[in-house]
Amino acid sequence: MASQLMKTDGAGTLRAGDVGRDVVLAGWVARRRDHGGVIFLDLRDASGFAQVVVNPEDAPASEEDLRGLRLEYCLQVEGLVRPRPEGTVNTDLPTGAVEVVAKTLTVLSPSDPLPFQLDERADVEEAKRLEYRYLDMRRSRMAENLRARSQAIKAMRRVMDDEGFLEVETPTLIASTPEGARDMLVPSRLRKGQFYALPQSPQLFKQLLMIGGVERYYQIAKCYRDEDFRADRQVEFAQLDFEGAFWGQDDVLATLELISSAVVEELRGEAIDLPIRRLTYQDAMARFGTDKPDLRFGMEITDLGSAFASTEFQAFAGVLEAGGSIRGINGGELGLARSGLDALVARAQELGAKGLVWMVVEDGGTVRSPVAKFLSDTEQAAVVEKLGAGPGDTLLIVADRDRTVSKVLGELRLEIGQPEGSDDLAFAFIVDFPVFEVGEHGGLVPAHHPFTAPADVDDLVAHPETALSRSYDLVLNGSELGSGSVRIHDPGTQAKVFEVMGISDEDAEARFGWFLEALRYGTPPHAGFAIGIDRMVSILQGEPNIREIIPFPKTQTGADPLTGSPSRVTEDQLFELGIDVRPEVRKAWAEEGDDPLA
Amino acid sequence: MASQLMKTDGAGTLRAGDVGRDVVLAGWVARRRDHGGVIFLDLRDASGFAQVVVNPEDAPASEEDLRGLRLEYCLQVEGLVRPRPEGTVNTDLPTGAVEVVAKTLTVLSPSDPLPFQLDERADVEEAKRLEYRYLDMRRSRMAENLRARSQAIKAMRRVMDDEGFLEVETPTLIASTPEGARDMLVPSRLRKGQFYALPQSPQLFKQLLMIGGVERYYQIAKCYRDEDFRADRQVEFAQLDFEGAFWGQDDVLATLELISSAVVEELRGEAIDLPIRRLTYQDAMARFGTDKPDLRFGMEITDLGSAFASTEFQAFAGVLEAGGSIRGINGGELGLARSGLDALVARAQELGAKGLVWMVVEDGGTVRSPVAKFLSDTEQAAVVEKLGAGPGDTLLIVADRDRTVSKVLGELRLEIGQPEGSDDLAFAFIVDFPVFEVGEHGGLVPAHHPFTAPADVDDLVAHPETALSRSYDLVLNGSELGSGSVRIHDPGTQAKVFEVMGISDEDAEARFGWFLEALRYGTPPHAGFAIGIDRMVSILQGEPNIREIIPFPKTQTGADPLTGSPSRVTEDQLFELGIDVRPEVRKAWAEEGDDPLA
Repeated sequence: MASQLMKTDGAGTLRAGDVGRDVVLAGWVARRRDHGGVIFLDLRDASGFAQVVVNPEDAPASEEDLRGLRLEYCLQVEGLVRPRPEGTVNTDLPTGAVEVVAKTLTVLSPSDPLPFQLDERADVEEAKRLEYRYLDMRRSRMAENLRARSQAIKAMRRVMDDEGFLEVETPTLIASTPEGARDMLVPSRLRKGQFYALPQSPQLFKQLLMIGGVERYYQIAKCYRDEDFRADRQVEFAQLDFEGAFWGQDDVLATLELISSAVVEELRGEAIDLPIRRLTYQDAMARFGTDKPDLRFGMEITDLGSAFASTEFQAFAGVLEAGGSIRGINGGELGLARSGLDALVARAQELGAKGLVWMVVEDGGTVRSPVAKFLSDTEQAAVVEKLGAGPGDTLLIVADRDRTVSKVLGELRLEIGQPEGSDDLAFAFIVDFPVFEVGEHGGLVPAHHPFTAPADVDDLVAHPETALSRSYDLVLNGSELGSGSVRIHDPGTQAKVFEVMGISDEDAEARFGWFLEALRYGTPPHAGFAIGIDRMVSILQGEPNIREIIPFPKTQTGADPLTGSPSRVTEDQLFELGIDVRPEVRKAWAEEGDDPLA
Repeated sequence: MASQLMKTDGAGTLRAGDVGRDVVLAGWVARRRDHGGVIFLDLRDASGFAQVVVNPEDAPASEEDLRGLRLEYCLQVEGLVRPRPEGTVNTDLPTGAVEVVAKTLTVLSPSDPLPFQLDERADVEEAKRLEYRYLDMRRSRMAENLRARSQAIKAMRRVMDDEGFLEVETPTLIASTPEGARDMLVPSRLRKGQFYALPQSPQLFKQLLMIGGVERYYQIAKCYRDEDFRADRQVEFAQLDFEGAFWGQDDVLATLELISSAVVEELRGEAIDLPIRRLTYQDAMARFGTDKPDLRFGMEITDLGSAFASTEFQAFAGVLEAGGSIRGINGGELGLARSGLDALVARAQELGAKGLVWMVVEDGGTVRSPVAKFLSDTEQAAVVEKLGAGPGDTLLIVADRDRTVSKVLGELRLEIGQPEGSDDLAFAFIVDFPVFEVGEHGGLVPAHHPFTAPADVDDLVAHPETALSRSYDLVLNGSELGSGSVRIHDPGTQAKVFEVMGISDEDAEARFGWFLEALRYGTPPHAGFAIGIDRMVSILQGEPNIREIIPFPKTQTGADPLTGSPSRVTEDQLFELGIDVRPEVRKAWAEEGDDPLA
């Protein structure tokens, strides 16, 4: 539907076939050139650009108006489409064959001088771009990213619709749980002193929907997480959340293949390789040192333990005796000088390794290495053979606790091998996660929420440290796009899992009592997943962070430079909600001479 | 995609053509009958019902299992589809021609005894239904409402997609404004003592998108409003929010016609009458006494002032002299006894009128009325004629301040005339709203947010009390579905409007400074709208309130009986956020002996 009043055509839609038509355009001045008394304007709107020719002699506007016509003025132009004169056709532009000769020109809104150039090539600092996001959006990079995000979500919805999923909206003002110390809270006005919580995910509500007989649910769900931001997180974010009853892992992964295919097809016009490769968690850790491997390149981590089974090199022998591992990667022909190799050693130490052994394979198949003299010829040959190395290859070996070896080699593999500027897409499913991970301080930490089904509940009770869960992740180019699991559907298993996780009956009742009751009314087996939309779209768009995909993102400290949120509020607002700012916070403000409540 | 593991078919999808097939079904026991040793189960899943025949002699499950098989057990059944025996075919059920003879039967999950019958005919109190919403959803009423909501949104999105709107997500953690005393606030964890606000609408962000060159935006937006709930409000709710640049009122209304048509077609398979009728605010108030008239029936309010221009009936003459009005409706053949008529008078007084004059038209065209003796024959005849009345009709007349007459007659018109159980749909646009309404206490109160364009800004400055704005509502069957307006797009008009509304420059800067700056960079003319999704779907589904359409609604006091939100939280949670519950609230708790923070 073309707007009935202000424009007949999109600026970017004009083609040779429109020559001779009278059109009305409306948009913004993206460029202005004055040529022998004639003004050439690039008029930009959501559809693209058109060249507008203004001849002051035809007086489509007052001379004063024309003189003042600056960048980003919002204009309406009535004119005639004509072919561009020979030699001035621009084949790079879809509208490059034509131009519009202005008959009338109306300034709909003037523009103040811009805080930064909207030219694509201008390099503008992010804080400025966020403060003036509405101007940043007029640049093609952001405009394309907003379109890509919209299209990606549309493609996701198309799959969900085709597969018979029902879109159901779950509440965002939910119950806080007594131990939900990380919940974002919302004081209630009607019930003073009481709080809603914002959801970290719709997990329990989607499980309730399964109990309620909604066999296939999906939602683009808004979720909240107010914590120290790691590199690339947002305090609010959207995920494609879905769940199926009478479902197991294969159903979820098949649906993820449909979704991934549809989104890549939509944004890139490409097909992805199907089926998506599956790796167990254990395999991923052993071969790539991470549970989100970048599979666009090889450089796999190889176990070298057997090569050193009877080594006399004490550093290696000691690690094997202590139950650690010796593993390595073939970095390929790095051609590093000694200083470069030393830098790798330093980097490995920074990552937590006691050291890094490097070897450069020489023409005869021998190796050059600080430790070469401690290794037998057989050992050296075995390493070269196991790492499939040839002359000139640099081999990197770490001997340490298994966990450390994985971390260090996994990271070095990325730093050395990750392809820059690559357009490749390598999706992977990681399956068979353990129930517990080893935490920072060595203790067992649940790897997933406590509603995740264990592979075998008896095994979990007997061997919690090694037991597997029915959870799985979707990974793309080394980033986790999302995770999911088969859920527990019977109260008995749920109780045992709580017990193993150290959640007492009393705790469980206080935190999830209403949910535990729901489980008792014929809960179907069910499984689901959640995909981080911004992460997926940012990778497909080749953007370095998710803020580039989000219309109005917050900074890494959770602030919005445009609107100034979050902010201090008035005493009245607090009073209305039955809350107050804590004395110690107000004291700190007072010391800064800056208490709005004083 | 049929689930690969647990079911081959939906229970409700089986037809005569499936006879002879081995199928696997999974669902819930909706009904159980024992007949001569054979058990008949109605198995329900999301697709409908199938009859399952279990012959214990074929031993598809242990006798104990079969005995224990209760309502809402979750089952998997493998069996053979066969025709129902002659005489037992159920033509009311899509699957009524066939049944499934169970070969194996597996209990996937047992069910505790139910808190209420899921039978459709069971009348269950709402509090119970909300507490066990996941069971309530298994009933066809809620299941159908959830489907209808999903379908309505899908139809809306289809229109927006077809019309080239971009779906853009705006933030829900936004800036609170210093006077936003009604904002719901969210304390920030990272910036203690600072707060985000939850949006009452995405108004300013969608205007920023217009400034940003997104010419057509839409979103299913989550909005928040924590206030004393009128009959049918929710603390969080979803609206279809859209906006167009280079747009005026006609563009918005044309889009609303597309949306309304699509949703009605989707939910009812009907076409609506187009174009949607337009009424000015003034016309609506005069003829229907309200700005959201129910146009499914006539019974229009008619001005009778000219009939009484020279009346000697003091009560009427005094009102006219004081600038009030005398208006009436023809209630039709109400056939009320004196007590019924007295009740109408009492009701009118309850609504604020000093009195109500009723007249019953007699066979000869004269009227029976307590005031007949005060009115001349000419006056009586004029009333009868103006109200198009015939013998037996009851006429109701109110003489009072204009505002009171509208309110009282508008309400009586609904109470007498509103069709019960009607399936009719009467959409209407109300246009040309005034900028200010007369408030409860007689002062001028802005009728819309201050970004609404006035029809003529000079007229607004000169005559604020009568000036019109470029705003419009969509009304269906007497309910407002949503509202919108042409927005102000130039800073000069915005400044004047703030001034007329009594917002000082300083205030405006503090509250909206960042937005006022944005207006200065070539803002296009733009206009938009927001439709309350739950209201629209509830009317189309014939439901009495929006809670029936919302998967997990809150009660009228903003509580969720299922999860117990909102709730008190721990001292740790408060500490983390830098806030505290106010001493007076805690004192009240302490007096109740119920302070969780003590």
